[in-house]
Amino acid sequence: MPQLRQNPATKEWVIIATERAKRPEDFGRGIVPVNANEKEKCPFCPGRESQTPAERLAFRPYGSRPNSPGWWVRVIPNAFPALLPIGNNERQKCDDFYSYMEGMGMHEVIIESPEHEAALATMDQKQVEEVFLAYRQRYLELASDKRYEMVILFKNYGPAAGTSLYHPHSQIVAIPITPLHIRNRIEQAMHYFDDNGTCVYCDMISKEKKTGERLVLESDNYIVFEPFASRSPFETMIAPKKHSSSFENITTEATKELASVVRQTLAKIRRALNNPDYNLLFRSAPVHEQNVEYFHWHIQILPRVSAVAGFELGSGIYINTMIPETAAKFLCETQI
Amino acid sequence: MPQLRQNPATKEWVIIATERAKRPEDFGRGIVPVNANEKEKCPFCPGRESQTPAERLAFRPYGSRPNSPGWWVRVIPNAFPALLPIGNNERQKCDDFYSYMEGMGMHEVIIESPEHEAALATMDQKQVEEVFLAYRQRYLELASDKRYEMVILFKNYGPAAGTSLYHPHSQIVAIPITPLHIRNRIEQAMHYFDDNGTCVYCDMISKEKKTGERLVLESDNYIVFEPFASRSPFETMIAPKKHSSSFENITTEATKELASVVRQTLAKIRRALNNPDYNLLFRSAPVHEQNVEYFHWHIQILPRVSAVAGFELGSGIYINTMIPETAAKFLCETQI
Repeated sequence: MPQLRQNPATKEWVIIATERAKRPEDFGRGIVPVNANEKEKCPFCPGRESQTPAERLAFRPYGSRPNSPGWWVRVIPNAFPALLPIGNNERQKCDDFYSYMEGMGMHEVIIESPEHEAALATMDQKQVEEVFLAYRQRYLELASDKRYEMVILFKNYGPAAGTSLYHPHSQIVAIPITPLHIRNRIEQAMHYFDDNGTCVYCDMISKEKKTGERLVLESDNYIVFEPFASRSPFETMIAPKKHSSSFENITTEATKELASVVRQTLAKIRRALNNPDYNLLFRSAPVHEQNVEYFHWHIQILPRVSAVAGFELGSGIYINTMIPETAAKFLCETQI
Repeated sequence: MPQLRQNPATKEWVIIATERAKRPEDFGRGIVPVNANEKEKCPFCPGRESQTPAERLAFRPYGSRPNSPGWWVRVIPNAFPALLPIGNNERQKCDDFYSYMEGMGMHEVIIESPEHEAALATMDQKQVEEVFLAYRQRYLELASDKRYEMVILFKNYGPAAGTSLYHPHSQIVAIPITPLHIRNRIEQAMHYFDDNGTCVYCDMISKEKKTGERLVLESDNYIVFEPFASRSPFETMIAPKKHSSSFENITTEATKELASVVRQTLAKIRRALNNPDYNLLFRSAPVHEQNVEYFHWHIQILPRVSAVAGFELGSGIYINTMIPETAAKFLCETQI
């Protein structure tokens, strides 16, 4: 059973999940079957459904058999999960100093396409919409489980972004705590609200619309821009223009619009940077803060074009070699 | 001139340092001369002193000429600095929403040996002592400059740890702010002190001595252990047993002892994990909090055996595939 342990000095949590690496040479890597990245062995390709845990959701022709081919989006539990949906979410004491929790949670994989070579940036619009509808459906389901405090939805694209399987997929993890990292972000937004009576992200969006110098694109309901304090070249933020603290609140129609906006943004980044590895993160309020006035959900895209080294680890300050205004101009001019 | 920009929503700072990458293909990478990692072209090797900025400190035979061979440890300004020792440390307003500072600071490289193939884990004891005496000397000098709030001393070993030059070296950066990441750690330690009247790190050290299950080694004045909530396999913490909030307070004798302890620890990790890439970080109080009762300086060694991916970026929670108690046992049994 994995364990969530808290550092008593920093209050940061870690997950100790030894099931993910049984042999010394596996340290830090999920156990991926040998050659799993080759199309001939890929467990995410149609026809190999029996090699994965049973599906939790699949978009497939009406009446077709679960865990058989025919699906266009498929969601399965991660075969090497960081957390397991058993145990309880109570704090336990090791002694009078250290505390931990059972590693309770849910860890799923969203297989974005039956095609091994597909990518969100190059799929057709309809397929990306289906992926985002699957995101929404799994997010809502996991958020409704009262044992969980946060749902973390993300995508690792390429080895530099930490992916272990080539076949296009995203991941969703439900966790029984609100981690310090999220708590700090919410607290800052709360302070801003208390000082100004407005959501800091709403104010940021209105500032970005006004100056325009970091804007990448806009749709009816979404805005895409390079943040003023981007941590890395082409860091990109996608946010709803209208205040909303959680991705839970999104409608079906807005999900499709978001899919289109993300697809266009990823296509621009892919073209501009020659298909870089990237992480895509949904930043949404904890599930019990679904409708708060101080937080504003958004997506962060972080191309992995620079190393996180000792300075970043020691100071928390990232060194970015590109001015965000330049990056925005570059992305605006990139034709897709 | 580099810029320090603050994210108004999260209060995190970034450094925008475009001087580090003039061409699009340089995004995120320091500009390293082609083939600089080959011994024949290495700018850190003796005889090529003119290819680096003029030295700030060198341990060299009495009377020998600066910036000429003969040195055994040499400290130079980074040729591609993240920050520059010019400008001022005042907050500037872009407008009513965004603020920044001039990227004022100092960024130096400590060349640890004239030998291209040397490593802290395999050098002789005397040489490691000299490196640590250079650390101390530069730390004290930078900490005495009232424009700076923090001195970040670190080492990136190997490409996975973000190093760009093979020749053994460490880096030291003085910055004009206390970053949020540090502020949060200090605040947590302060709360603990307020609640308990003791330093949380002192209590941790006494707990680790008592249980012994995560201990790696001990000297008269230092303790080495795998933290209870280690973020990655073989994360290792080295701390003075006696309370001290800043590396500034270390004596010459204690510096030599620390050098020995770090050398032994790195040698064990090198043997146990087959020479892994790692980051080594000094975590010390801000320079204006040199003697506070709530913080305790220490060294963190983070082997880079696992990827930081979307989950870690989105949640701040690291997934560790090894139980720290197992790692400690393994390191204890590793002969060097």
